[in-house]
Amino acid sequence: MVPVTAADASRETPLGVIASQPSLAPSAGPGTDGAHTDGARTDGVRTDGGPADGAPADGGPLAVAAPGVPPVSVPPAAVVPGGSATADEDALSALLALLGADLEACNRAIVARMDSPVRLIPQLAAHLVAAGGKRLRPMLTLACARLCGYPPGEAPAGAPGDTPEDGTGAAGLRHVHLAACVEFIHTATLLHDDVVDESRLRRGQASANAVFGNKASVLVGDFLFARAFQLMVEDGSLRVLAILSQAAATIAEGEVLQLATQNDLGTPEDRYLDVIRGKTAALFAAACEVGAVVAARPAAEEAALADFGMNLGIAFQLVDDALDYAADQVLLGKTVGDDFREGKITLPVLLANAAGDAAERSFWQRTIEASEQTEADLDTALALMSRHGAIAATLDRAGSYAAAAQAALGMFPDTPLRRALAGVCDYTVRRAR
Amino acid sequence: MVPVTAADASRETPLGVIASQPSLAPSAGPGTDGAHTDGARTDGVRTDGGPADGAPADGGPLAVAAPGVPPVSVPPAAVVPGGSATADEDALSALLALLGADLEACNRAIVARMDSPVRLIPQLAAHLVAAGGKRLRPMLTLACARLCGYPPGEAPAGAPGDTPEDGTGAAGLRHVHLAACVEFIHTATLLHDDVVDESRLRRGQASANAVFGNKASVLVGDFLFARAFQLMVEDGSLRVLAILSQAAATIAEGEVLQLATQNDLGTPEDRYLDVIRGKTAALFAAACEVGAVVAARPAAEEAALADFGMNLGIAFQLVDDALDYAADQVLLGKTVGDDFREGKITLPVLLANAAGDAAERSFWQRTIEASEQTEADLDTALALMSRHGAIAATLDRAGSYAAAAQAALGMFPDTPLRRALAGVCDYTVRRAR
Repeated sequence: MVPVTAADASRETPLGVIASQPSLAPSAGPGTDGAHTDGARTDGVRTDGGPADGAPADGGPLAVAAPGVPPVSVPPAAVVPGGSATADEDALSALLALLGADLEACNRAIVARMDSPVRLIPQLAAHLVAAGGKRLRPMLTLACARLCGYPPGEAPAGAPGDTPEDGTGAAGLRHVHLAACVEFIHTATLLHDDVVDESRLRRGQASANAVFGNKASVLVGDFLFARAFQLMVEDGSLRVLAILSQAAATIAEGEVLQLATQNDLGTPEDRYLDVIRGKTAALFAAACEVGAVVAARPAAEEAALADFGMNLGIAFQLVDDALDYAADQVLLGKTVGDDFREGKITLPVLLANAAGDAAERSFWQRTIEASEQTEADLDTALALMSRHGAIAATLDRAGSYAAAAQAALGMFPDTPLRRALAGVCDYTVRRAR
Repeated sequence: MVPVTAADASRETPLGVIASQPSLAPSAGPGTDGAHTDGARTDGVRTDGGPADGAPADGGPLAVAAPGVPPVSVPPAAVVPGGSATADEDALSALLALLGADLEACNRAIVARMDSPVRLIPQLAAHLVAAGGKRLRPMLTLACARLCGYPPGEAPAGAPGDTPEDGTGAAGLRHVHLAACVEFIHTATLLHDDVVDESRLRRGQASANAVFGNKASVLVGDFLFARAFQLMVEDGSLRVLAILSQAAATIAEGEVLQLATQNDLGTPEDRYLDVIRGKTAALFAAACEVGAVVAARPAAEEAALADFGMNLGIAFQLVDDALDYAADQVLLGKTVGDDFREGKITLPVLLANAAGDAAERSFWQRTIEASEQTEADLDTALALMSRHGAIAATLDRAGSYAAAAQAALGMFPDTPLRRALAGVCDYTVRRAR
């Protein structure tokens, strides 16, 4: 891959050309549910590689990137506990239906706070808006806050009472603003990831760095990161600030560790897990934990939700890493084998290499460690993984983490919302089967 | 310039080679003043282009990058008010002598908090340590806190009393930790700047991106930024968090605006000033303001110190922009004309273009707007600037901002520390004369 220099980018896409940017105003979506205002979405891109976005298993309305396509409205009653095959396909839809107004408010906050007098910032943001996205992480914050009975006046019947927390954020909307903050951290990470990975595509569209250049992606990522902290400061809870600033540091450590393990087949599985815990699961965990914090729940519930998010995030990344060797490019919106070409150390590679004979290990050394690859090598890699069941084993591992995530929800009342979150765990794994 | 891909970087400088990294422990410097522990320094790099570092006008011990060279110890008595030519050459030394123990503690905090189990992070940090640096921004935080009588028990005779602030940081050391935090934000910005500018040199040494690759620079920058916020959260003051998170967002906006104005000779002077206010002066202002905040001073003093920092920062960047067309490469530790080659819009260019005739404007359009340059063009640019006095006019402008910065100190008692800060204003401009 050829890195884009700023000079290249400015020649390819002079900034003036972007004048036809999509409106940043949160225009009402075509559906009846206010949460489906696609125009207000900005993520469209993911920290973890991308497979699920746009895949049919996404199912729900949030997967509909093209404006004008009516979203499917799934009433909460359609969600059944446990996670049967029919139910988990609609898991995100079910969650969305339960969080509709909250997510709409979150989308408005995202659009409002991405603005800046420096036009290139909303321009680049608009590119992300146009790319669509499913807002999984902010939905986790919203759902966990609601699961804990926040805001107190609107708690579901039977939910425990609420006590004031140290935050000073807008009454009843703290979860909304913190969900936006989580999405900003996620989006900043994505922008920097695409620069680091030299990605040209996200969700099947040109990535921000491909359109605007690496320079703009680095700097707008910095802006969004700073803006995330401003949102947290406005919320006013030092607990929330501690959780999310720790998560931000852990994400960066995970990304650096991934860089350090690149091309190194000697990477132990534990270190690979450290990478995905850092680069992906830490933000899932923090997104969930702050939901409990705004509701001022006991430490055990905070810990349970952090645990839920951490396990869900690990499962999510394991599935992503499996899909990079298993899914159709059209479904993924990206090229199959990106990880392979980059020499990224993921579990499918580690498992196939460990199970291989001398000739196979020599293949992996040449392709992954020495980065010497021919056109036919990806097919060989897929065949070797299939021979040793490396993808299936990775997905089994993901299933264990998803089950652990579901188990962490056990201390909460059995409500439609808890069932929807459990459904997301099933969906996370089943999207790859 | 050719961007360094991660693959290139790992081939050029395998991480294992960095094993001979300088010790991260704050080893005692060769001088008698504890503040001169060069081994503990990590900035060595600047957000704003670099000219002053290593230039003889730096004078004081902090300019001594090479270990083993004894620093010059300048007692406070050597500082005279006002800023005569002899005094301002020693301005940084004078400030350093007054802040010795504080700066030493700050250096220890920087080294301790740059550590991470992910080895590449302290490795890259060690590279910055080895590059040396004068720690101007953290010194401003330390000096402004002391100027405001923080910590209360150690206030100079005659300084007003102190009241508790909302922070929960370590008693008497809040200014030290916040100074470290300011330096982390600065260093993160530098790392990303060098990626954006495709710089190969900082202070005459290979820049971090040249050694470790753009990827590591982006990600370690993210880590340092997150770590800065963790330090602020530990301090516990929401006021401090608000000031520094706002500054971080403003810095990013300034950098993006600079990118947007690149190659555009139609950039109004006001917009150029917005760029340098954002990319440089905002952090100077915040660094100074938080000094007043930890001392719990009245709003007028906070505002005066923010004003001082903002004006000093603008002066500093104006001088940097002048030096890019005026100084010797050996003195700068970088190539003269970097801004010219990048098509950066700075005041010397705007002034020369505005004063030029048709042929001259056509020269600027070709070289700056169209980026079509030959070897001889830099000399022509220098000659045109000289003809129209563009450098002198830029430095005059810097002088006005430096004077405004000095004036902002007027409400504080006339102490050696205030005089040293006034001396820094003079030094900032005179280093270029």
